[in-house]
Amino acid sequence: MPAPTSIRLPARSSAAVEDYLERILELINTKGYARVVDIAQSLKISQASVTNMVQRLDAEGLLKYEKYRGLALTTAGEALARNITRRHQLLTDFLKLLGLDDDVIYHDVEGMEHHISPPTVRAIEALTEQLQRHPALLVKVRKDIDEN
Amino acid sequence: MPAPTSIRLPARSSAAVEDYLERILELINTKGYARVVDIAQSLKISQASVTNMVQRLDAEGLLKYEKYRGLALTTAGEALARNITRRHQLLTDFLKLLGLDDDVIYHDVEGMEHHISPPTVRAIEALTEQLQRHPALLVKVRKDIDEN
Ligand SMILES: [Mn+2]
Ligand SMILES: [Mn+2]
Repeated sequence: MPAPTSIRLPARSSAAVEDYLERILELINTKGYARVVDIAQSLKISQASVTNMVQRLDAEGLLKYEKYRGLALTTAGEALARNITRRHQLLTDFLKLLGLDDDVIYHDVEGMEHHISPPTVRAIEALTEQLQRHPALLVKVRKDIDEN
Repeated sequence: MPAPTSIRLPARSSAAVEDYLERILELINTKGYARVVDIAQSLKISQASVTNMVQRLDAEGLLKYEKYRGLALTTAGEALARNITRRHQLLTDFLKLLGLDDDVIYHDVEGMEHHISPPTVRAIEALTEQLQRHPALLVKVRKDIDEN
C-alpha cells in the first residue's frame, strides 16, 4: 500500500514515556507513591535507566523528582497518564467483548496502545458502546471466531 | 472466514522484518522487482542499512539476494509477506468501517499491525464481517463519533 503523500498528526509522546507515565500513575494509585526502585521493579529496568528517564520527564514538566523524596506527577503529567490509562482500559474492554483471552489482550494492548491516535481511540470507544448494546451481534462474532 | 486464510505470523518476526517484507512484496507487485535502492527510497532508510537487513533476511531463508540481480522472495518469505499484507488490509478495512480518515488509518495501522497477535486478528476479522452485515449499527457508531 503506498503511503499517503502527507501524514499530518500531532507529535506524540514515545512508547517508553507512555509506559513510564502509565506505571507511575498506577503505583501512585495503588501504593500512594512511586519510587525509582518501584518503577524499576515494575518495568523490569535498571534503577539507573529509570533515574535517567525520570530526570527527562522532570525536564519535560511531566513530574517533579526529588532524589530522597520520590516523585510526583505534575498536572500535565497526571493528565497525560490518565489519558494513557484510559486508552489502555478502553482497548482492553473492546478486545474483551470479542472473547479473547486475558493474556492475549494484555500483550496486544501493551503493544498497540502507543500507536493508536485520538480519532481512532474515539471511534473504538463509540464502537465498543454500540457493541455492548447489541449482544446478539457479539454472540455471532464469537461463534464465527470459534468456528475457525 | 475459511481456515486457510487465517493469518499466522511467527512470534519472532520483528516490526522491522515485517515492514521490509511488506514493502518488498509491494515493490515486486507494482514494479515487477525490488532493488535495494527502491527499498531504501520506499522505507526512507540508507542503502547500507537495507543491504544489512536484506542479507539477514537471506540468511533466514526469507529471500534470495544477488548483488547485481536484485532480490526475490522465497516461498516462505512470500507466504509471510502475504500474511503481513493481508493483516494490514484487514486492519485498514476495519478502521475504514468506523469512518476514520485515510491518513489516520494508514498511520495507526502501520504502528499497531506489528503488535496484534493471530487470535486478535481473527477476532477483528470476524467482527469486521459482522459489522459489514449490520450497516445500521455502523451508522450509529459514526453518529456517536461525530457528536463527540
Ligand atoms: Mn498499557
Ligand atoms: Mn503495514
